[in-house]
Amino acid sequence: MTELLTALRAIVGDSHVLTGEADRAPYEADWRGRYKGRALCVVRPGSTEEVVQVVRACAERGVAMVPQGGNTGLVGGGVPHTTGNEVVINLSRLNRVRAVDPVNNTLTVEAGCTLATVQAAAVAHDRLFPLSLASEGSCQIGGNLSSNAGGVHVLRYGNTRELTLGLEVVLADGQIWDGLRGLRKDNTGYDLKHLFVGAEGTLGIITAAVIKLFPQPRARAVAWAAMESAEAAVALLSEVRAACGERLTAFEIVGHAALELVLQHIPGCSDPLRAPAACYALIELSDPAADAALQEMLQTVLSAQMEAGRVSDAVIAASGAQIAALWALRENISEAQRKEGISIKHDVSVPVSRIPDFLRRADAALREAFPDLRIVAFGHVGDGNLHYNLSKPAAAENADFVAQTAVVNRLVHDIVVGLGGSISAEHGLGQLKREEITRYKSSVEMTLMRSIKQALDPHGLMNPGKVL
Amino acid sequence: MTELLTALRAIVGDSHVLTGEADRAPYEADWRGRYKGRALCVVRPGSTEEVVQVVRACAERGVAMVPQGGNTGLVGGGVPHTTGNEVVINLSRLNRVRAVDPVNNTLTVEAGCTLATVQAAAVAHDRLFPLSLASEGSCQIGGNLSSNAGGVHVLRYGNTRELTLGLEVVLADGQIWDGLRGLRKDNTGYDLKHLFVGAEGTLGIITAAVIKLFPQPRARAVAWAAMESAEAAVALLSEVRAACGERLTAFEIVGHAALELVLQHIPGCSDPLRAPAACYALIELSDPAADAALQEMLQTVLSAQMEAGRVSDAVIAASGAQIAALWALRENISEAQRKEGISIKHDVSVPVSRIPDFLRRADAALREAFPDLRIVAFGHVGDGNLHYNLSKPAAAENADFVAQTAVVNRLVHDIVVGLGGSISAEHGLGQLKREEITRYKSSVEMTLMRSIKQALDPHGLMNPGKVL
Repeated sequence: MTELLTALRAIVGDSHVLTGEADRAPYEADWRGRYKGRALCVVRPGSTEEVVQVVRACAERGVAMVPQGGNTGLVGGGVPHTTGNEVVINLSRLNRVRAVDPVNNTLTVEAGCTLATVQAAAVAHDRLFPLSLASEGSCQIGGNLSSNAGGVHVLRYGNTRELTLGLEVVLADGQIWDGLRGLRKDNTGYDLKHLFVGAEGTLGIITAAVIKLFPQPRARAVAWAAMESAEAAVALLSEVRAACGERLTAFEIVGHAALELVLQHIPGCSDPLRAPAACYALIELSDPAADAALQEMLQTVLSAQMEAGRVSDAVIAASGAQIAALWALRENISEAQRKEGISIKHDVSVPVSRIPDFLRRADAALREAFPDLRIVAFGHVGDGNLHYNLSKPAAAENADFVAQTAVVNRLVHDIVVGLGGSISAEHGLGQLKREEITRYKSSVEMTLMRSIKQALDPHGLMNPGKVL
Repeated sequence: MTELLTALRAIVGDSHVLTGEADRAPYEADWRGRYKGRALCVVRPGSTEEVVQVVRACAERGVAMVPQGGNTGLVGGGVPHTTGNEVVINLSRLNRVRAVDPVNNTLTVEAGCTLATVQAAAVAHDRLFPLSLASEGSCQIGGNLSSNAGGVHVLRYGNTRELTLGLEVVLADGQIWDGLRGLRKDNTGYDLKHLFVGAEGTLGIITAAVIKLFPQPRARAVAWAAMESAEAAVALLSEVRAACGERLTAFEIVGHAALELVLQHIPGCSDPLRAPAACYALIELSDPAADAALQEMLQTVLSAQMEAGRVSDAVIAASGAQIAALWALRENISEAQRKEGISIKHDVSVPVSRIPDFLRRADAALREAFPDLRIVAFGHVGDGNLHYNLSKPAAAENADFVAQTAVVNRLVHDIVVGLGGSISAEHGLGQLKREEITRYKSSVEMTLMRSIKQALDPHGLMNPGKVL
């Protein structure tokens, strides 16, 4: 292994091969502290060509590689195992914006650009890159691509997958696949980019991408609406979409318990409505036309829905500050829940039409099995994606609560899959759900996935033990 | 082989195994008469389960299969070779709409549904399925999926790929992959559906799909604008998109020669503007809000562009009849060109920003090599996709003209690829471009495609000799 370290140092320079325990530490654990591995070393290549040489050096010696971006993942996909014989390839130094084409509405960016850098490059050319996540200051676009990141604007713009036109990938044997095409239409064979997007680094290392830009929104309106049921929220979604079409940029649901936690734990947050309700919808419209009458449009559709008895009360933000205040209620839920204590989280999706069924079934099953659990449900209802989290009962011990995780997961996931849903809507499989997924995917699908892995990484060196 | 025929008859019934020459003939040739093959037989299964049994019967005997939908393809992808030992599996009898979910905005349809049937099922639930093609009355959704069909609304809604959420596929060994999920977010492993979409039946047989629906447009406005260059058209596209955002449903370019052919050959068509120009843009806006002031929006942006000198003249349709008349100028180009005589066609794409470069270079190269060729350029400039067609010089003999096809193709394709483009934007590779693509794709990419083919169809029985 000393010989491999020598080879790696010759490729990237001594200072970019980290071997000391303290130097390696930030790259060996995820930010939530759920996964702590140990790597042979951490290599920080500075260019695609250096990635090629690093991969070749590892592949020739049969050494496994763990590609890593900003290390903000939630499922342990970018963290090494504890064996001490994997090389972490951190892409942070590949951080150039290679090209901007405002007429083609594309950016060509390297994997190590932070999402915030990518967003800023778009804004500098009066365009929007719509992917937006809580971790955007530190997560990197290569990680967003490898995990097919979602976020609050998927409803309108799609997941990272749908925002991608082309990729550059270093394959398991160190060859470069140059698929950096900026084309909206290209029917010349199998669509390889879609294999690498969302593969969590198990099929190759994404080193650069061509991503889509959109016109900057110039008008924006946000409403907060209260209703008595998830059925009403889903029905409201249909009405808003029919009335507003693609102006609808976000439609988030917030359960009463989630709002309560935010009001309790986050300073400066207040309930925008007078009376409590079972659930709330945060609705955002945006439009590139600066004079679009979006507030009036929201007013019209919400008034009609109040008359129809579907919405009990609603408020439309009258200023940018009020827009920020309404969004803060949604964006602080995770933080408020963290302050409340530990929780068991689920990142699930079902068809939008089954959201009420899911909540009804899951709530009932959990209340029966664990009467004191507190259900904190919220999320991207416009995508059928809920963060269905369970807070520790106030009286319970942490250890007792955590011990129930597997049972709770099983109960929730069985209901999700029974409704045609997914047990990982946004976050991926990584290490966290690698075993769990084998319960739900057919053997046909698992076999297909394994044959693709075998075809692209026959020696199993790319991020082994993740996803599959 | 008699024994295979007996087995197939036992599966689908005697009347659905066609062996007579006259019975087979419509399935053995493409509609343009460019490809004429000979099949062992044509089988018409009536259900996914029958497809499974047919595939197993063929696979067990090592017999190659050619999946076929409405047989409207342009590259020979659904037509058997001339060997007489392939089985055509025609999916027309799998023509049920299995489910409609207006709240989830999805349809579950079988492969043999015509596109028109799918569109009508959406409309029956007050929704839009936006894929729209000249052949929509006879092409089938399974073929649209297998060829990743495009059309005039890709700019706004994407290709068939982007309209697909889930698939059911019968694999090369007769197993069913049930990926019929109606989810907007699902990050549980490799995205297999994107492998089968656009694979032209070489990796398995798509038997059903979950596809996306959209709100019905209730307002629509169409303009026809004249300008002096492709540069001006591309700049106009940027301006219209910035002003109108997602309301922009189509932005088509029509070269002067293309308009001339339509005016000459298509009865009832007339030039909507007073003076001829180098090229024209057909611009369509639509909006689900019935009171959207789309004509005013077009008026504003076009007036500003006329003042800026980019647009020389423009007309905005004042009625549905005028909208139809403007679209007729675009939609009749192929027919007019057919009436004019034979032509050499190209279905190419480049980044939108390179459209003017492409036209300048290709026009110049062709005028030098073939001074009398008539260049008929038009297409989906909003997607960077041009149909760059060449009509026979009036004085030339057909045979002499056709003999130049390979030289002309090479010249055009080299320029396309030099600009980062694709030699098959919409139509696929099939038999037509299977050789040609090996000139332009890297050996890395060809090897990746072959390893995926090998992984999913190890015996090479699914539509061999197409794509790869």
